[in-house]
Amino acid sequence: MDYSIGIDIGGTNTVIGLVDESGTVVAKEKLRTKESSIVDDYLKSVATKIELLADRVKEENLILGVGIGAPNGNYYHGTIEYAPNLPFNGIIELKEILEVLLLKDGYNLKVTVTNDANAAAIGEMIYGKAKNVRNFIMITLGTGVGSGIVVDGKLVYGHTGFAGEVGHTIIDIDGRQCNCGRKGCVERYASATGIVITIKEMLANTTRDSILRAIKEDEITSKDIYEAALKGDSLALECFDYTAKILALGIANASEVTSPEKVYLFGGLSKAGDILLNPLKKYLNEFLFSVFQNTIDIELSGLKEEDAAILGAAALCY
Amino acid sequence: MDYSIGIDIGGTNTVIGLVDESGTVVAKEKLRTKESSIVDDYLKSVATKIELLADRVKEENLILGVGIGAPNGNYYHGTIEYAPNLPFNGIIELKEILEVLLLKDGYNLKVTVTNDANAAAIGEMIYGKAKNVRNFIMITLGTGVGSGIVVDGKLVYGHTGFAGEVGHTIIDIDGRQCNCGRKGCVERYASATGIVITIKEMLANTTRDSILRAIKEDEITSKDIYEAALKGDSLALECFDYTAKILALGIANASEVTSPEKVYLFGGLSKAGDILLNPLKKYLNEFLFSVFQNTIDIELSGLKEEDAAILGAAALCY
Repeated sequence: MDYSIGIDIGGTNTVIGLVDESGTVVAKEKLRTKESSIVDDYLKSVATKIELLADRVKEENLILGVGIGAPNGNYYHGTIEYAPNLPFNGIIELKEILEVLLLKDGYNLKVTVTNDANAAAIGEMIYGKAKNVRNFIMITLGTGVGSGIVVDGKLVYGHTGFAGEVGHTIIDIDGRQCNCGRKGCVERYASATGIVITIKEMLANTTRDSILRAIKEDEITSKDIYEAALKGDSLALECFDYTAKILALGIANASEVTSPEKVYLFGGLSKAGDILLNPLKKYLNEFLFSVFQNTIDIELSGLKEEDAAILGAAALCY
Repeated sequence: MDYSIGIDIGGTNTVIGLVDESGTVVAKEKLRTKESSIVDDYLKSVATKIELLADRVKEENLILGVGIGAPNGNYYHGTIEYAPNLPFNGIIELKEILEVLLLKDGYNLKVTVTNDANAAAIGEMIYGKAKNVRNFIMITLGTGVGSGIVVDGKLVYGHTGFAGEVGHTIIDIDGRQCNCGRKGCVERYASATGIVITIKEMLANTTRDSILRAIKEDEITSKDIYEAALKGDSLALECFDYTAKILALGIANASEVTSPEKVYLFGGLSKAGDILLNPLKKYLNEFLFSVFQNTIDIELSGLKEEDAAILGAAALCY
């Protein structure tokens, strides 16, 4: 059987998984991303873990390579570039350094890098629901909003290697201030962070009753809003409706560009299921240009949350 | 030498051109699109003109095929579908009917169909400035705003075959009413029609002096605004600045999706040159997410206005 190694580099932890061709994570290793702020030390630890996993199967099987999903990961350069939430500054030559380290120890493995959302999109193609879907958009709803765009069966990297930033398309030039320095980005509304901003605005601007008034304002989480919505709290439901509206606008605008057949939602907020999906579908059709209406299905991702980042990264080897 | 036949179907005229491989239109035929509202009659006339042109070179040369650029032209289906400005209703099986007509007369030519803006993008790739550009966006600024998106050297058709509608991305959900039934489409601001709406609003909402006040309001054209701007008329310049701002937002949002290296402007409003280009470049950089800033050049198309539609259509044969 063929195996691949998928690595999910997050701000806190780095998880390294050995994945078989059916998409099962057969073994995992973990280390703290902040273990060392010296990149070379950190990457030596990563290489050691890769070798540990490879040793489990390499005698009798082919290991296709190592795929890495990382914030600001660049597919063309094999780098991480100026990732704000990682302990390493500037441009990290991830692919080059790791390949050299592995080769020194006798492991001839090709390393491929991309960002988390692109990895999720490729994961959906290889192991998830998008096996036969030629045109789709993957939306990852976490602290921010990421996206991976697939056109004609291929992930879109574009000129820079950073294509697919639906979360940073602008839906209102006078809108909310985004961390990126601009205003009105989709991410500022349709992420776990964004929905909390929305509910705080709603609680402040109305005197309407809500279960959420029992929680200290600074402690409200997106999960609280979801639970309130599940109980039929009208303010929480309205908050989800507004979130869905903005997300639908971002998806509609991206869809006018690439005309996808499917949109898959993944991560955090997508767990709200129909509470998010139902208004999302309604608004998407409203915002779409006539030729695209009723041509796009929005669904939840087919990847298991727990292993999705590793699966996406491992899928880069294909 | 290889030749191809390019057809530009417009609301008023249909122009059929014989194009050599260097991109020279060596001969042209013309007929009125509204000659007959019976599609079969119209297409018989088109076929006759194609044959007339083909006869000029077919003895000693290869004719690659027939390319057609038409409003609402669909590449996958070879059809025109519900084009509002053509005299034919519903779905026209353009490719099928024309191929049969031509074959009957002994001309075995493959017919390819797409919309005008996609044809312009392909024309730019084959005959214009984009010969070695893998990722670009073509924007056609006419009565409306069209676009053709090229990713990794291939035109994006998407699931429906209608991908690339930057003109119908929404920049303000409470914005101007668009003909398409929705509100706030880029096209409603950044087209020849849109800029006239803007100047009328400006003239009505201020008492500022302007050369344009000498023209009857209902008779102001985008050309008048351009000429006033050339003379330094501050209201006209502000009008171009606002137009550029909205267009920049539409282009920025599309660029977050596909990360182009170049954006080419074509048609009507693009003739304003630097009056449009200078503010457009400034706003584009402002609206772009940091990783895309200073990675995109905006330029005027390299296709000659007069023959561009035919060249784009002819380029479909490649």
